[in-house]
Amino acid sequence: MAEYHGFSSNNATASLRELALNPFSLTEPNALNSRRFASYCCRMNDFELLYATERVNDDTLSALQDLADESRVIEQFKGMKRGEVVNRIKGYESEERMALHTAVRDLGDAPLHPEASAQARAELQKLQDFLDALTAAEIVNEAGESFTDMVMVGIGGSDLGPRALYLALAAFRIQNRRVHFISNVDPDDAAAVLRGLDLSRTLVNVVSKSGSTLETLTNEELVRASFKAAGLDPGRHFIAVTGKGSPMDNPARYLRSFYMFDYIGGRYSVTSMVGAVMLGFALGFEQLSEILAGAHAVDQAAEEPDIRRNIPLLMALLGIWNHNFLGFDTLAVLPYSQALIRFTAHLQQCDMESNGKSIDRSGQPLAWQSGPVVWGEPGTNGQHAFYQLLHQGTTIVPVEFIGFRQSQYGEDLEIQGTTSQEKLLANLLAQSLAMAAGRGNSNPNRRFAGNRPNCILLADRLTPYTMGALMAVYETKIVMQGFIWNINSFDQEGVQLGKVLANEIIDHLAARRRDKNYQGRDDDLSWALLRMTDK
Amino acid sequence: MAEYHGFSSNNATASLRELALNPFSLTEPNALNSRRFASYCCRMNDFELLYATERVNDDTLSALQDLADESRVIEQFKGMKRGEVVNRIKGYESEERMALHTAVRDLGDAPLHPEASAQARAELQKLQDFLDALTAAEIVNEAGESFTDMVMVGIGGSDLGPRALYLALAAFRIQNRRVHFISNVDPDDAAAVLRGLDLSRTLVNVVSKSGSTLETLTNEELVRASFKAAGLDPGRHFIAVTGKGSPMDNPARYLRSFYMFDYIGGRYSVTSMVGAVMLGFALGFEQLSEILAGAHAVDQAAEEPDIRRNIPLLMALLGIWNHNFLGFDTLAVLPYSQALIRFTAHLQQCDMESNGKSIDRSGQPLAWQSGPVVWGEPGTNGQHAFYQLLHQGTTIVPVEFIGFRQSQYGEDLEIQGTTSQEKLLANLLAQSLAMAAGRGNSNPNRRFAGNRPNCILLADRLTPYTMGALMAVYETKIVMQGFIWNINSFDQEGVQLGKVLANEIIDHLAARRRDKNYQGRDDDLSWALLRMTDK
Repeated sequence: MAEYHGFSSNNATASLRELALNPFSLTEPNALNSRRFASYCCRMNDFELLYATERVNDDTLSALQDLADESRVIEQFKGMKRGEVVNRIKGYESEERMALHTAVRDLGDAPLHPEASAQARAELQKLQDFLDALTAAEIVNEAGESFTDMVMVGIGGSDLGPRALYLALAAFRIQNRRVHFISNVDPDDAAAVLRGLDLSRTLVNVVSKSGSTLETLTNEELVRASFKAAGLDPGRHFIAVTGKGSPMDNPARYLRSFYMFDYIGGRYSVTSMVGAVMLGFALGFEQLSEILAGAHAVDQAAEEPDIRRNIPLLMALLGIWNHNFLGFDTLAVLPYSQALIRFTAHLQQCDMESNGKSIDRSGQPLAWQSGPVVWGEPGTNGQHAFYQLLHQGTTIVPVEFIGFRQSQYGEDLEIQGTTSQEKLLANLLAQSLAMAAGRGNSNPNRRFAGNRPNCILLADRLTPYTMGALMAVYETKIVMQGFIWNINSFDQEGVQLGKVLANEIIDHLAARRRDKNYQGRDDDLSWALLRMTDK
Repeated sequence: MAEYHGFSSNNATASLRELALNPFSLTEPNALNSRRFASYCCRMNDFELLYATERVNDDTLSALQDLADESRVIEQFKGMKRGEVVNRIKGYESEERMALHTAVRDLGDAPLHPEASAQARAELQKLQDFLDALTAAEIVNEAGESFTDMVMVGIGGSDLGPRALYLALAAFRIQNRRVHFISNVDPDDAAAVLRGLDLSRTLVNVVSKSGSTLETLTNEELVRASFKAAGLDPGRHFIAVTGKGSPMDNPARYLRSFYMFDYIGGRYSVTSMVGAVMLGFALGFEQLSEILAGAHAVDQAAEEPDIRRNIPLLMALLGIWNHNFLGFDTLAVLPYSQALIRFTAHLQQCDMESNGKSIDRSGQPLAWQSGPVVWGEPGTNGQHAFYQLLHQGTTIVPVEFIGFRQSQYGEDLEIQGTTSQEKLLANLLAQSLAMAAGRGNSNPNRRFAGNRPNCILLADRLTPYTMGALMAVYETKIVMQGFIWNINSFDQEGVQLGKVLANEIIDHLAARRRDKNYQGRDDDLSWALLRMTDK
């Protein structure tokens, strides 16, 4: 693939800078009319993106299309899926890896990367056999009983995405199966989870791609100690998900081992064995397959080059418009679905770890902003919390709303003439309109300036299929932004320095515990070190 | 109290603007030495604030002290506690209320606002009697059994703060007592919580100050319907916490009614009956009293005018330095404690709803930035998620770390020579230092620019007393920032427009459900309205 030189050298960025001097105003009378709504609605697979409430007009969209074309984002996306080495910094030591999270759900007859898809199929077959054996009570505990609970031990990508999907799909759980999560090295995390669990009927799913994650190995030992204290054999309860050949790849210690490969980044690993083992246990293999199918459908549809027919591409470009040209530093993702309570936490990793970068793919310092701060909580809860700032604060926050026409459980009541689901949807649309249009008032405290850009991503119902698709929409949006910004969205060198320093510090804390007269290193940090242990 | 004219007319702001042109650099060799650490440590009650890693020197601190003095922030804070009408916009219709959340924990012999404290004592006495009757099994269910579970139905201030404290203090729960939360109008929220609950042994605590919150009343009806369907009498299970005289103040419908008063804002209401009833049920009255005592101790200590001896005041000023003078739009609050998993969500409301304002207390548009976007997740989890952007992103995010020397459960293991708690603390300190000092490298991808300002708020252990104190530190920091910015931190007019529009929209959704040919209003919104119901 020919080299792409990056964001600021595009002709389109000059046009966009010009357009940003006078962006479309949403507060003019009649600016938000049905024609605009109908025209600024992008349909793809099971989703609609309503973006009439963004500060764009046809000129903006045309320039954004140029930006997509000039940066050859679709070509780069297809290259990633085919296995080009996208995880690299040219001219410097870097990971030099492919990014093939799309391959693990590309399970049809003609996969784009046959080898990776074959590896995924093999692991899925192993998983299906394992799940069948659990259901048939061929794999049981010491007392011959079936397993009811799973503790997932992992952190970062081995925690956030899987946990977000588990919570999102709790309505689809197999009866009497529950999953619990331990992630933090804070010992209270494990202590709180292990209290009240019947360990004898619990599987422990230890997930670490590198097989050397400090938090995960520490928590695994804590949990193993609990099993031993309860007279249980960890070898009958512990499962491993790890990179083939990692220090954790030691089948003798585990009931089963499932593999991931170096072409799957942690934050893109939900549909690999990292998420699949737990989701398969909780939801069953069929529902897991639905998640993969939903994600794959988006991976395919996202090859569409017309930005008005490609939701993740359009979201990527609208995000760039708001961030790089209108100058807004953060992005709020606000799902009108309580089930998506931890989805934004997953996005914080997926987006900010991917695109929180300062150099381009040749190692040059960026002359433009890369990824924004991503945050959010479900509506309507957020309306009673931080929306005050969204409507009337001095900082403008672009918003991506997410909504579903139907509830998951279908348990609803008509109260005062409307159902809860109708109240939820009315609030979703109302917030979008209020932020965009604003409203005047003679009392300055009741004045809404409007022109707060936002969009609504809408689907029928949050099912395993839709959830897989939604996750893939965001994964795709994020890598496309990275391609356009010309950064490497697949490494995370920024987490290394903290690890190095923590290793330098930790021995001093332990030394202090053993010897109360230990005064720390004879250097600048001794005072700060002592604060960690002494009042 | 004499009038304060506001932020930009202070002499100190001119000095601070000048100082901000060349702020103290944390990346110079030896910049972070033990003398600086020892000097830039503020002690107050059970906390230490380590702020050597902020971009300040003695000149900056001196100018910040001037800002505090000129804005008479301590005088304003004392006035608030004495009952001055701080919730107002001069010259315009506004709430015209006192803000007396401090009075509900001012329970000694000489309270600053005797009437409010007397009302608080009366409610606490009612609560203690009720809790004693539950414990003595004088109040029981239809079958004569004691209550084991409580469902708290509330949203915003009636949910976030109480929920954050419940989760933070789960280690201190009374055995066999659990609390569950329903907040969102999304019907799936109630459906998921009610599944698997034994309603017969469950109390329902309905909390709405106004007694007219849409979400809460809707969810109350949903839950009441479940009780009736189970053949249970809601009158034996439902408790109300509401404003005296509100539409919900109807003792005939409830087993007990507890009151709050108009001088308590929702986001400052955790220590009023809003949080107290649930926390008393879960933790017992004694632990609840500890929470109140911890908060009160901070309320008193925060009268100290020397910014280097007053943690919430110093945090308020460092926040203003980072936000208004160094120009950083957001603030990450990162607790190294899994128990504080929802504390940042509480702060999002407390801070952003209080200080996300665009006019001053005379109704004039602000010429300066008010409150920042507040977000965060616990460490070490965040290290494996969004810290990449904090270390190497193009947006600089000031950080407030929170840490505790000891764990809550005390269940820990030495693994590879160190305990989990030591690993946690080593990581906390390491992150603070890495962000501040940075580090060079010949590989540009392994370069850390440093000068990311941050501080560490440190205490011995997260107990009910410390939790009450921590919450009050932030409440106080937030109101002090509001006093300095000359804004009203106690109203939330910005949430009104969304409510108005939702009411306009909702009937159309219901009409559409009843009549499939209904085409919405004959106006601009009909197309968008139909999208909410039809694919």
